[in-house]
Amino acid sequence: MVVGKVVGSLFSTRKSEKLVGNKFMIVETEESMCGSGKRLVAIDIIGAGVGEYVLVAQGSAARIGCDMQDAPIDAAIVGIIDEGQDWSK
Amino acid sequence: MVVGKVVGSLFSTRKSEKLVGNKFMIVETEESMCGSGKRLVAIDIIGAGVGEYVLVAQGSAARIGCDMQDAPIDAAIVGIIDEGQDWSK
Amino acid sequence: MVVGKVVGSLFSTRKSEKLVGNKFMIVETEESMCGSGKRLVAIDIIGAGVGEYVLVAQGSAARIGCDMQDAPIDAAIVGIIDEGQDWSK
Amino acid sequence: MVVGKVVGSLFSTRKSEKLVGNKFMIVETEESMCGSGKRLVAIDIIGAGVGEYVLVAQGSAARIGCDMQDAPIDAAIVGIIDEGQDWSK
Amino acid sequence: MVVGKVVGSLFSTRKSEKLVGNKFMIVETEESMCGSGKRLVAIDIIGAGVGEYVLVAQGSAARIGCDMQDAPIDAAIVGIIDEGQDWSK
Repeated sequence: MVVGKVVGSLFSTRKSEKLVGNKFMIVETEESMCGSGKRLVAIDIIGAGVGEYVLVAQGSAARIGCDMQDAPIDAAIVGIIDEGQDWSK
Repeated sequence: MVVGKVVGSLFSTRKSEKLVGNKFMIVETEESMCGSGKRLVAIDIIGAGVGEYVLVAQGSAARIGCDMQDAPIDAAIVGIIDEGQDWSK
Repeated sequence: MVVGKVVGSLFSTRKSEKLVGNKFMIVETEESMCGSGKRLVAIDIIGAGVGEYVLVAQGSAARIGCDMQDAPIDAAIVGIIDEGQDWSK
Repeated sequence: MVVGKVVGSLFSTRKSEKLVGNKFMIVETEESMCGSGKRLVAIDIIGAGVGEYVLVAQGSAARIGCDMQDAPIDAAIVGIIDEGQDWSK
Repeated sequence: MVVGKVVGSLFSTRKSEKLVGNKFMIVETEESMCGSGKRLVAIDIIGAGVGEYVLVAQGSAARIGCDMQDAPIDAAIVGIIDEGQDWSK
């Protein structure tokens, strides 16, 4: 998983019907993390808000681990990092 | 998923028979996204046009999430981004 | 998928018995594509020749989509790009 | 797999219920390894401590190989490197 | 797959019990290949020695294609390149 910050969300009206009802969050990976500050779009199964730091799982884990076996997703927010931790040291 | 812009399409007459009937779209990932402006070729299950911004799912999600379990695809356009959103901020 | 050019092939006499009978093609990904001009070794299920531009599928798609569910392959040539197309624009 | 050093851990109170009970370790991949010194967050099934060098498996291997088929994880510490070895030569 | 050179091996006494009996080889990917000279740790099912050039399969192919469906591995040496070939041209 990688740590990133939720920086926004996206709307897509025309999309796979298996994605209906999901929120697309834009997550910016931390500079020190694999991903190096680049952004990805993740499904949110936790209820994260803009500005929060989150754990993102990628690949088949996003689909299978999030009970969305049949949905075309490759990234999911699976946890919100507790505040006050410093993972950049 | 990543956000990218559809910049063209490709034709392949000699191809896996499991790919017959599919459209190969060339998507340029956004500079701020994982992918960093590089291009990939994605199957389009939504009906995106050149110039539109789309959500691309990669890996097994493209195959399984798009009801093409048996096809050799690793990227699919799964949504078209609604206009007027700014995901580059 | 990514577009690449077949630049050669490889022989491996001592290999997994599940790979016996397969051709290992060296594909150089296009500079504009994810992969950025780097090379990979792909199984060829289409019959591509050196110098041809091909579509390469990676990950589980190479295995499952090419009816080689049990083989240790992670990349396959799944289509030959028709000549006369310009995907670099 | 890649070799990395455990540099810390993370707490996440609000997370997928399938992740409850797991420890999130921050692993910094070795500079010479794929990953190039960047960090990732891995589940630890071995009991590694901060400062130890570990083997990290990524992708579906982390989920399936660690008996967590249903959990949204994409990286796991699967071994602790014996001391006194020099893998940077 | 990518071509790399076996540059060493690693020992891990404390590891997943599903990895017991496996050899961990350090493979340096070729500079021209995806991987760009970085190293990874691969299971060896062929019997490669230090200094040999090998084909490495990554992802689920390493697990499923190598009859280690339940093991947490994401890379495997699946072939040894015959000598006298020049894949860098």
